[in-house]
Amino acid sequence: MDDIRETGRTLDPRFDANGLITAVVTHAESGEVLMVAHMNEDALAATQASGEATFWSRSRARLWKKGESSGHVMRVIEMRIDCDQDAVWLRCQPAGPACHTGARSCFYRRIGHDGLEPIE
Amino acid sequence: MDDIRETGRTLDPRFDANGLITAVVTHAESGEVLMVAHMNEDALAATQASGEATFWSRSRARLWKKGESSGHVMRVIEMRIDCDQDAVWLRCQPAGPACHTGARSCFYRRIGHDGLEPIE
Repeated sequence: MDDIRETGRTLDPRFDANGLITAVVTHAESGEVLMVAHMNEDALAATQASGEATFWSRSRARLWKKGESSGHVMRVIEMRIDCDQDAVWLRCQPAGPACHTGARSCFYRRIGHDGLEPIE
Repeated sequence: MDDIRETGRTLDPRFDANGLITAVVTHAESGEVLMVAHMNEDALAATQASGEATFWSRSRARLWKKGESSGHVMRVIEMRIDCDQDAVWLRCQPAGPACHTGARSCFYRRIGHDGLEPIE
């Protein structure tokens, strides 16, 4: 383990082989996990500069500001990073549903004993 | 997008090229994000069978039951999966600190304007 990365005060993200870190978005008030996405260096910088969650879309291979087409942007209240700096946690105020399906959260199904069960 | 995977009730995880999905662990009561890790098919099955969070350790390349050495196991209260089934959210009751540093959560630093700021 890299002690400086773990204990220090320098932002030094550990991007993976594809240049990405994991980003977890929760609702700043309810704490519900809304979505999981990925950020490259540019997405992290754009999020910091704009205060609105911006990711790297792996499927479209481009920067993707959440809500750029739907209007459901996510205002970042706080951003944290984990011990080995390969994941960030964004506490956000969402302007609408997080999921492209229209669900409030992408995690709308529970894993049950006999398959998936809708939450809402 | 795969509609059946998104709308159906069949657990059909979309493992990546390394056979992994992302796993986000939150505290079942406080909602705090405790850690982010990865699961392969065996880790997911072990978690379902035991009710205790089990991951795939990429650094050690083996199954890793959280708390196997520290005793800080995480009892799974609920497990959810996201729309495209490449991430799971585990709401857990932890038996101790989530982070190997001794911190309650691995996310013990905020990303501030001038670097990282300790949360606690």
